[in-house]
Amino acid sequence: MINPSKKNNFKKLKNQFMKSTKLFLLTLFLVCFTMTVQSQSINHKDIRVNQERIEKRIFELAEFGKDATGKGHRVAYTTGDVEGRNWFMEQLKKAGLEVTIDAAGNIIGKRKGKNSSLKPIAFGSHIDMVPDGGNYDGCVGSVAALEVMEILKEKNIITNHPLEVIIFANEEGGTIGSMAMVGHLSADGLQQKSQMGLSYSEGIKLIGGNPGIISSSILKKGAFKAFLELHIEQGGILEQEKIEIGIVEGIVGIDWWDVTVEGAANHAGTTPMKLRKDALLAASKFIIEVNEIALKTEGNHVATVGKIDAMPGAYNVIPGKVVLGLEIRDLSFEKIEMLFAEMEKQAAKIAIETKTKINFERRGNSVKPALTNRNLQQIIEKSANAMDLSMKYMQSGAGHDAQEIALIAPIAMIFVPSVGGISHSPKEFTTAVDMANGANVLLQTILNLDKE
Amino acid sequence: MINPSKKNNFKKLKNQFMKSTKLFLLTLFLVCFTMTVQSQSINHKDIRVNQERIEKRIFELAEFGKDATGKGHRVAYTTGDVEGRNWFMEQLKKAGLEVTIDAAGNIIGKRKGKNSSLKPIAFGSHIDMVPDGGNYDGCVGSVAALEVMEILKEKNIITNHPLEVIIFANEEGGTIGSMAMVGHLSADGLQQKSQMGLSYSEGIKLIGGNPGIISSSILKKGAFKAFLELHIEQGGILEQEKIEIGIVEGIVGIDWWDVTVEGAANHAGTTPMKLRKDALLAASKFIIEVNEIALKTEGNHVATVGKIDAMPGAYNVIPGKVVLGLEIRDLSFEKIEMLFAEMEKQAAKIAIETKTKINFERRGNSVKPALTNRNLQQIIEKSANAMDLSMKYMQSGAGHDAQEIALIAPIAMIFVPSVGGISHSPKEFTTAVDMANGANVLLQTILNLDKE
Repeated sequence: MINPSKKNNFKKLKNQFMKSTKLFLLTLFLVCFTMTVQSQSINHKDIRVNQERIEKRIFELAEFGKDATGKGHRVAYTTGDVEGRNWFMEQLKKAGLEVTIDAAGNIIGKRKGKNSSLKPIAFGSHIDMVPDGGNYDGCVGSVAALEVMEILKEKNIITNHPLEVIIFANEEGGTIGSMAMVGHLSADGLQQKSQMGLSYSEGIKLIGGNPGIISSSILKKGAFKAFLELHIEQGGILEQEKIEIGIVEGIVGIDWWDVTVEGAANHAGTTPMKLRKDALLAASKFIIEVNEIALKTEGNHVATVGKIDAMPGAYNVIPGKVVLGLEIRDLSFEKIEMLFAEMEKQAAKIAIETKTKINFERRGNSVKPALTNRNLQQIIEKSANAMDLSMKYMQSGAGHDAQEIALIAPIAMIFVPSVGGISHSPKEFTTAVDMANGANVLLQTILNLDKE
Repeated sequence: MINPSKKNNFKKLKNQFMKSTKLFLLTLFLVCFTMTVQSQSINHKDIRVNQERIEKRIFELAEFGKDATGKGHRVAYTTGDVEGRNWFMEQLKKAGLEVTIDAAGNIIGKRKGKNSSLKPIAFGSHIDMVPDGGNYDGCVGSVAALEVMEILKEKNIITNHPLEVIIFANEEGGTIGSMAMVGHLSADGLQQKSQMGLSYSEGIKLIGGNPGIISSSILKKGAFKAFLELHIEQGGILEQEKIEIGIVEGIVGIDWWDVTVEGAANHAGTTPMKLRKDALLAASKFIIEVNEIALKTEGNHVATVGKIDAMPGAYNVIPGKVVLGLEIRDLSFEKIEMLFAEMEKQAAKIAIETKTKINFERRGNSVKPALTNRNLQQIIEKSANAMDLSMKYMQSGAGHDAQEIALIAPIAMIFVPSVGGISHSPKEFTTAVDMANGANVLLQTILNLDKE
């Protein structure tokens, strides 16, 4: 028998429960709806990276490999490099990425996109340094790439395209990691010595790569929708002109020559000024001519005489022979050739004037220019414009991993100012604001590109 | 009792003997008279050296120290030097001289004069060579000095003044023998290493000197009436101007500086032409300025940049620092200072223009100029004139033993042409005619000076 009062109580309870459940479900629905709406309503244009976190990580990374004097040492394949890489991989994992090391030692962090059939958008840089180098070259682009992944995770943004962070191995030793990715690292090359004395093969093993299957790191042409690299300018143009963002039109080609000036070594006391065939005087005139030709020709090319040897090299002997190292860089090989032809022409005049012979020997290791993708340049420009950042189209005078990746994918590079134009020195410095500006342009470029 | 016939016979014999004696004495007188007259009648002005003998001896001397490849090697204190010296001393003895070696290893060959109270007229040079040197530097003056003694012997000429040939030891190592003669070779100096690795002390022992009593080689001020040195010009002026004899006005003083140019080493790819502080560009402008100042200033001074080091010295780095070796030579120290002041002034302008710093450090080892004696110059001029030889007053840009001897005696130097202005090289060459011209001027100068 059922107690009617009990039955009523039960009914009341049931009603209450139903009410609560409805309320709960409604609340749940509302929460979910709000979250969804919120997620949808976040305007991607307004997302910004965390400037403090970028700066903090630059400092954290700088700790690895510090010697007793406080100077950083993360040259590829050293303990500092290995420790820095381990720490970096931890950060990538914390940002939710699936992290692997390819056969060449490149660190790859993957994030799924909504559509797995789309090509990944890749971005990154390197964290190894030159001996006695600084904490910004490569690191800014690497930390910014990590920050992009982190902020996307924080904002719960899933892009359409898969995303990949690549931290290239041993960039400073000759873009070894990116060379491997485009099939430019041969078995012979692996046996050559790196700047720290190990062979590349030994070094790659040390950082977790597998030189035995080096070809497994080769990427197919078209592997990425794009590859983007943020980097410090390593020059003084942006700082000088107070411009926040550099949009790289291309990475220059380089050609080198050994220039030999032959005069006549003679007694500096007994040979009158007018009877001399002074190879160093002729070389000096040529050095000035190289500078003047470079200055008076329109463009962003550079020409440098960085090496000089004068023989026999004594106070009391007129130099009989001088050997110079000449380098010309430009985005166009034709321009390099044009500049060189003019230098050669002027050298012939100097040779006659100074009664010397001037010969040029082209070294065999020219670097081909790599142009960046026009569409990507425009997306970068649009992204920077939307944030009211000043910008300038410029060339990269230095080589970068992007130069190799250009062989398999459209590439683009974003530059941020280097204080004093200094690089490859412990004095290297880029402000936190400039790093954040660059990272924001990288982030917005990725998001804009993702919509295409 | 005396037999009258015997007495007559005796008388006859006596008369005959007296006649013979008279005839003998007359003959003797006539012979002596003739010889004397002959000796007096040889016009000293007409005496000439034996050109073939000079040339032959130059070739003979060149044989000592020849290596398997036929290249001479008579650097001081080597076997070649010792053998050459021994041969030379033999020749001096054959020419009738009293030959000794002083404590410093200098070879001295003495010939008596009519009046032993007169100061000797000294002349000579050296027979040691620089590594990879030639057979004329020093040897021409030495062989000519020997020839003068030989021809005087052949012609039976006894000068009023005693004559001395001096073959200085180790001239090329820094006028070591002549330094010892004027008290400039200290006990400390003796312990220093010569260019062949032996200490000067060891080397001097090897060539028959006695370093233990080195001060015994010191000559008093006024030891010689004059010291004359015939030498190849070691420059190209006489040959260029087709002049047979150079009358040396003085031996130049020398000052040296280390010039440091400081710019900023930077990436040759990323640093635009206009933002560079290229130390090598600044150094080149300075080298040209040194040349132009020397060329546009009246006189026989020379200015040379013979040494250059550019740092870091890589194809792809703008040189941040350059160190140059600057040398200026002239007969007057004031002129050297004036030229240097102008170079320093231009350097300051270059530093501003190239955004570099240019600093000068004077090296502490200046060489003082040594002027030759005006009276001796005139006797050389008169002697050359009498033989219709063309001549030119000039300075000696190179150092010589005469420079040291100038501290204790009036000195003069006679130059003969060097083909191509070459010296300190196996290609060194002076024609037999030019050597004989020089030796004749030396001979006539000695004979003319002897009359004073």
